[in-house]
Amino acid sequence: MAEQVRAIRTRQAILSAAAKIFEDSGYQAATISQILTEAGVTKGALYFHFQSKEDLAQGVLAEQDQRIMVPDRTSKVQEILDMVMLHAYRLQTDRMVRAGVRLTMDQLAQGLDRSGPFVRWAEVVTASLQKAQEQGELLPHVVPAETSDIIVGSFAGVQSMSQAVCDYRDLAVRASALMRHLLPSITVPSVLASLDLAETRGATVYAEALKAADELENAGASA
Amino acid sequence: MAEQVRAIRTRQAILSAAAKIFEDSGYQAATISQILTEAGVTKGALYFHFQSKEDLAQGVLAEQDQRIMVPDRTSKVQEILDMVMLHAYRLQTDRMVRAGVRLTMDQLAQGLDRSGPFVRWAEVVTASLQKAQEQGELLPHVVPAETSDIIVGSFAGVQSMSQAVCDYRDLAVRASALMRHLLPSITVPSVLASLDLAETRGATVYAEALKAADELENAGASA
Repeated sequence: MAEQVRAIRTRQAILSAAAKIFEDSGYQAATISQILTEAGVTKGALYFHFQSKEDLAQGVLAEQDQRIMVPDRTSKVQEILDMVMLHAYRLQTDRMVRAGVRLTMDQLAQGLDRSGPFVRWAEVVTASLQKAQEQGELLPHVVPAETSDIIVGSFAGVQSMSQAVCDYRDLAVRASALMRHLLPSITVPSVLASLDLAETRGATVYAEALKAADELENAGASA
Repeated sequence: MAEQVRAIRTRQAILSAAAKIFEDSGYQAATISQILTEAGVTKGALYFHFQSKEDLAQGVLAEQDQRIMVPDRTSKVQEILDMVMLHAYRLQTDRMVRAGVRLTMDQLAQGLDRSGPFVRWAEVVTASLQKAQEQGELLPHVVPAETSDIIVGSFAGVQSMSQAVCDYRDLAVRASALMRHLLPSITVPSVLASLDLAETRGATVYAEALKAADELENAGASA
């Protein structure tokens, strides 16, 4: 058990170092030896967890996935909205998430398959849209896979614009405005009227998700 | 006159070379001497036109601006739609536009102010939205500057997703779908019903704009 904890910690230290180096140098120019120095681990330890530079980048990319989950919502449209606002909040506050998103948006990173996060996010949003459709929350013409790609793609650009213009300071405002522009062509009016589109929603959901994760962990420890 | 033409050609050759090197190496790693070799011009010629690497990048960035103009439309919403679809078409077909957009999206390019294209595009779209508002084309709650940022930002992400997933092959389809998702929360229904949202719209507008530019040039030459 202690060894397992140590291995997880080493893996995290390597990923943090990789995130920093990728952010500072770009994927293209980054080297494994830079990451080794930054992480302060042995070559053997690094290669035990990651086989290559691309493998390290994929590890960082995966960190933006839904580790911190939005709790189940009655309205699946609210659930999607919460995913978007939570992701915006995590981008503002979590360096690892930021590094993953930057790698995803790095059109100059040759030899790195950056489609993963786009595809995985699109799958998660598609599944929620399908549930929303079954519950009658969506307008009749909506095609979940198409609308999902629009939500994921447009959010990617809005975060990029926020980063370029003011280093993410207005990201929550922009994310909320984006959803106000997209949801009226997706959602039936009665659902639309009940949504919480507040700019502070991301922070609220984060606190809620963290509490849920802690309770789950404590339940696991006492079991 | 002949000298002026030569200077314009040299400037274009340098920008093309810079676009290629930035695309291959990334902004961070690219060097002026690489660009010199690629362009096949003298150091003196390059420094006559561009003072620094950032200056070269700004030159490439500026190429995605509206050199090729959408002709005036009665409906200003259609004009905005045409700008978006034309830009999507140029991204698919023009290497220089592609290089400019990649630099804009390169969150790893330190010391390069990438806000320019976002801000300039947002200004152009804001101006058109204001005209649309004066003409009664927009829903009463629309704030042109806010909606403009959403259109520009979301398009930036949709193009990035298309590039990551399939190297721009489906960009026209995605751009049209994005506008179908955004415009219903912006435009009054009667305008919405008259819009041409076809996926081939970009190619059509490009041919039209090129013809208009040629006619303008011929008129200038004969004057």
